[in-house]
Amino acid sequence: MKLLEERIRRDGKIRAGNVLKVDAFLNHQMDIGLFNEMGKEFYRLYGDQNVTKILTIEASGIGIACVAAQYFNVPVIFAKKTQTKNIDGGVYTAKVESFTHGKVYDIIVAKEFLTSGDRVLLIDDFLANGAALMGLSKLVEDAGAVVVGAGIAVEKAFQPGGELLRAKGLRVESLARVKSMSEDGSIEFC
Amino acid sequence: MKLLEERIRRDGKIRAGNVLKVDAFLNHQMDIGLFNEMGKEFYRLYGDQNVTKILTIEASGIGIACVAAQYFNVPVIFAKKTQTKNIDGGVYTAKVESFTHGKVYDIIVAKEFLTSGDRVLLIDDFLANGAALMGLSKLVEDAGAVVVGAGIAVEKAFQPGGELLRAKGLRVESLARVKSMSEDGSIEFC
Repeated sequence: MKLLEERIRRDGKIRAGNVLKVDAFLNHQMDIGLFNEMGKEFYRLYGDQNVTKILTIEASGIGIACVAAQYFNVPVIFAKKTQTKNIDGGVYTAKVESFTHGKVYDIIVAKEFLTSGDRVLLIDDFLANGAALMGLSKLVEDAGAVVVGAGIAVEKAFQPGGELLRAKGLRVESLARVKSMSEDGSIEFC
Repeated sequence: MKLLEERIRRDGKIRAGNVLKVDAFLNHQMDIGLFNEMGKEFYRLYGDQNVTKILTIEASGIGIACVAAQYFNVPVIFAKKTQTKNIDGGVYTAKVESFTHGKVYDIIVAKEFLTSGDRVLLIDDFLANGAALMGLSKLVEDAGAVVVGAGIAVEKAFQPGGELLRAKGLRVESLARVKSMSEDGSIEFC
């Protein structure tokens, strides 16, 4: 998606350790006009898939998912991150290892909101090692529901997550796929 | 706002310790059609206030804020919760005591996204003791910007936050104000 690639070139910042900061428009300050264009694109890609729910993960996926959901006319669920061991029986749970923070946390969704008839689109802001998407997919599968695919804003295609998930048969559509980037500010898209 | 009150009556659940669970439509599963109606109402209330930014707090304020922002045509910023002491000089910070979790955490916003020319509308899902709104107000004031007011989905009017903040001169508009509730399921609105 050209609009997003151009925005990343203009307002993204590249930091040591393969960190791409897009907090001016995507995941701290959020450009809702841009989110609407992204939502339309997700709908162009998945609009024929009879999506019944959108599932994302707190916190930075929520805004994109909520704006996109308007095109699909379905509810959004966000998986909650928790480090507590006291998870009661009423939730689906998965473990996710954070690339950014280097720790493992549990994500949970209340069972009542995912059922076997659901066709679920996963939405998130970033795809790097794929840990979040794998965790979200597990929640959906544990509910006996179907993952129709994932809609991602920015994929770091030089990290293994996207390839790994596609090899497993998950449909992954990323609106901007970063092929390479370096701290001098240069960035190349697939 | 009748629509929200009716939804709370229908799908809200009252639990011990003054907990009102609205996770079927507001802060776990999210009804985006409802959020649009709430956004329109916030715009009816604050549309003449020349709002330049909407500020919310992760995680459950984000969806409401992003959908509402479409009516104001302004960016949304979400304050991040962090328990780290390593906050660099580039952020505004405030301390917030969580009613739900009984602990104190720092909230931060990058300085580059709040400037002295901004007129900021605060949006959040719940108002109980007012700690989150007080923290968000401090961030805005530290930036030299103006808080035009707060837009809240559900205010627990039997807890002191709303009264406290209004007494300090903050304009607070809550779409549903719970006067009383009890575990037998009865709920009364102001």
